[in-house]
Amino acid sequence: MPDGASVKLLPELGIIGRVWTMMLALFLALKSKMTNFAKKAWKTGVDEPKKVIHCLKVGMGLSLVSLFYYTRPLYDGVGGNAMWAVMTVVVIFEYTVGGTLYKGFNRATATLLAGSLGVGVHWLACKSGNDGEPIILGIFVFILASAATFSRFLPEVKSRFDYGVTIFILTFSLVSVSGYRVDKLFDLAQQRLLTIAIGTSMCILISILVFPVWAGNDLHLLITRNLDKLAESVDGCISEYFNEGNAREEEEPTCKKSQSYKCVLNSKASEESLANLARWEPGHGRFGFRYPWKQYLEIGAAMRHCACCLEALSGCINSEIQAPDFIKKHLSEGCKKLSSNSTDVLKELSSIIMSMKRSSNIDSLLADMKNQSEPMHESTVDAPLMGVLPVVMVASLLIEIASRIEDVTDNVDD
Amino acid sequence: MPDGASVKLLPELGIIGRVWTMMLALFLALKSKMTNFAKKAWKTGVDEPKKVIHCLKVGMGLSLVSLFYYTRPLYDGVGGNAMWAVMTVVVIFEYTVGGTLYKGFNRATATLLAGSLGVGVHWLACKSGNDGEPIILGIFVFILASAATFSRFLPEVKSRFDYGVTIFILTFSLVSVSGYRVDKLFDLAQQRLLTIAIGTSMCILISILVFPVWAGNDLHLLITRNLDKLAESVDGCISEYFNEGNAREEEEPTCKKSQSYKCVLNSKASEESLANLARWEPGHGRFGFRYPWKQYLEIGAAMRHCACCLEALSGCINSEIQAPDFIKKHLSEGCKKLSSNSTDVLKELSSIIMSMKRSSNIDSLLADMKNQSEPMHESTVDAPLMGVLPVVMVASLLIEIASRIEDVTDNVDD
Repeated sequence: MPDGASVKLLPELGIIGRVWTMMLALFLALKSKMTNFAKKAWKTGVDEPKKVIHCLKVGMGLSLVSLFYYTRPLYDGVGGNAMWAVMTVVVIFEYTVGGTLYKGFNRATATLLAGSLGVGVHWLACKSGNDGEPIILGIFVFILASAATFSRFLPEVKSRFDYGVTIFILTFSLVSVSGYRVDKLFDLAQQRLLTIAIGTSMCILISILVFPVWAGNDLHLLITRNLDKLAESVDGCISEYFNEGNAREEEEPTCKKSQSYKCVLNSKASEESLANLARWEPGHGRFGFRYPWKQYLEIGAAMRHCACCLEALSGCINSEIQAPDFIKKHLSEGCKKLSSNSTDVLKELSSIIMSMKRSSNIDSLLADMKNQSEPMHESTVDAPLMGVLPVVMVASLLIEIASRIEDVTDNVDD
Repeated sequence: MPDGASVKLLPELGIIGRVWTMMLALFLALKSKMTNFAKKAWKTGVDEPKKVIHCLKVGMGLSLVSLFYYTRPLYDGVGGNAMWAVMTVVVIFEYTVGGTLYKGFNRATATLLAGSLGVGVHWLACKSGNDGEPIILGIFVFILASAATFSRFLPEVKSRFDYGVTIFILTFSLVSVSGYRVDKLFDLAQQRLLTIAIGTSMCILISILVFPVWAGNDLHLLITRNLDKLAESVDGCISEYFNEGNAREEEEPTCKKSQSYKCVLNSKASEESLANLARWEPGHGRFGFRYPWKQYLEIGAAMRHCACCLEALSGCINSEIQAPDFIKKHLSEGCKKLSSNSTDVLKELSSIIMSMKRSSNIDSLLADMKNQSEPMHESTVDAPLMGVLPVVMVASLLIEIASRIEDVTDNVDD
């Protein structure tokens, strides 16, 4: 029924009717929200089936580790501490192999270190008699927890051992404090280490053997994809600017193309976290152990530098003050050539990184680009500055790119 | 002794001597590394005493919660589950109040939700007899863990409930699995909730009452500081470029000033995480509950837009191709004025945000800036493009800033 009808009926329906209508409206709103959410979730799943596989892997890991509770001999071996295996799986299992290794290593090392330290402190406290015990333990917990928390603020510790420090504080307080009541501290520590080892090794095995997602590989793909996007943007911006008059109907796709540099600008955080995790990974595919992942970060920084120029360029293109047509025509030919040259260089670089092989083409492409850009410096226009800007920007952008291309080629040599 | 001497002695010293020398070298290397580390740590502590206070707060929280183990009546109330209070404090205590509230809320809600769901599933599994029980539990754990893991990939869930989902999976698996052995499930659940509530409320109380660090306030300061940095950079870049000849000796400080826009470029991640956490905070100081933190992100985005232009500008300033002196002189006056105008606008904006009060000055400053920039569009130079570039860039940068200033003033109105 139409909305108007139900509103008219309301006074006659009384309180129950109103509540009913409100609940109906609430239900409908909830339903549409749920539908939206489900659609988004479905889209994520279809776009990136890897993520769905990851979820199934987590489910598998947890179900496997639950077996420890159900099979009598295993349960007798570790007892109620099987809980720690479950916890380990939930907390350690990460999307990438590097993430799982990082967390697993941190958890195991921190537990071992904090466990032995806790036992030592506990022994020391025991020596001091019943009254002194809580005081000594309290002081140690206070000092170590404060110091460990402080270490998390240091970038070196933060990037590699952040999770380990949390686990260190946790284990140390649990061991030193629970030791006050539980006498069989060594048995407990042994069982706990065993269960954590079981959980960790299971996570690592599953994440490496079942459809592994390597952080290093993801970083590699991200960098090549970003190079392609940069090429697309240079091309899109220039063609959008100079073909404005005669190609209005196909503006939508170019407009989208010319904006793809924004992904490059925003990918700093993900590049850094991927490089951070990739360090933990063993050799895989074409990447050896201790592969110089940091160089990818340098390429990434160089690309963001270019993307910044592109952002400025795109600002000029969309600014209200436009160049008169005769200037555009005067410079159109050179700019288009230069942009196609630089696009070629970027695409070649992307394919070099993708195939991880030196290319003989790159030098000639670079030379072409330089030959094209140098005469543009000398070209003179007698006109208001604003109209000339985009052209100058492209030239400066290309010089920036050219100067960084040698870095990139150096980096790709391993 | 000098290095050469010890090397000469080595063959005579034999194996013990060599090992000794190696250990000494190792010790010295370790010592210098430790000293460096300690220096860095000391510097961090001195620069940001807030961080040191945070560490002491964590230590205090942990020591307080340990009391539950030492005081007999409290221990009898919650039993061995006091462990959960310790864990809660370690895991929940974050640097900012918002972070602690976010984690506390997530932990409490997720534990409650997953606990009741776990009990329900356990009851269902019990009905199906001894053989079916592990199978049904396994299937439920698999499905719920997979689904929950998947939900973490959705940005909406990720930004607000990431931690909650982890706790949900954890609690659900623990309850549904441990239920297989432990019969007094309800008692256990109750005690666990109680201990978590104790830990959470203690964390929240300490983080709010003892030298609180508000994420919202930090965001506020970050934005104003970035505006100042932007102003500094504009000023630094222009004066560096036009005073190059006559002020070589004082180049170092200007050079550093002109680079401070880089902080603005890199602060996206911290702005976003602070805004995310600030949402959880109750009203504090001059900020009410539901303060529109998102507008700070918009200001931040506008600033990064400007910083991008500055990066391009700084590239031009440092490029090898320099403008002939006569062009520089021709444009120097206008550029310097324009840069000082725009610096004024930025500084005024920063003080507006800082004081959270409208300013009557800003309109006249804006008008000054516009009046200065418009004639520059029309100024004509008959020279190679490259030399003219910086000037044009500044003009375009200022137009960008001007167009965004209205957004900023709108946003500051609450």
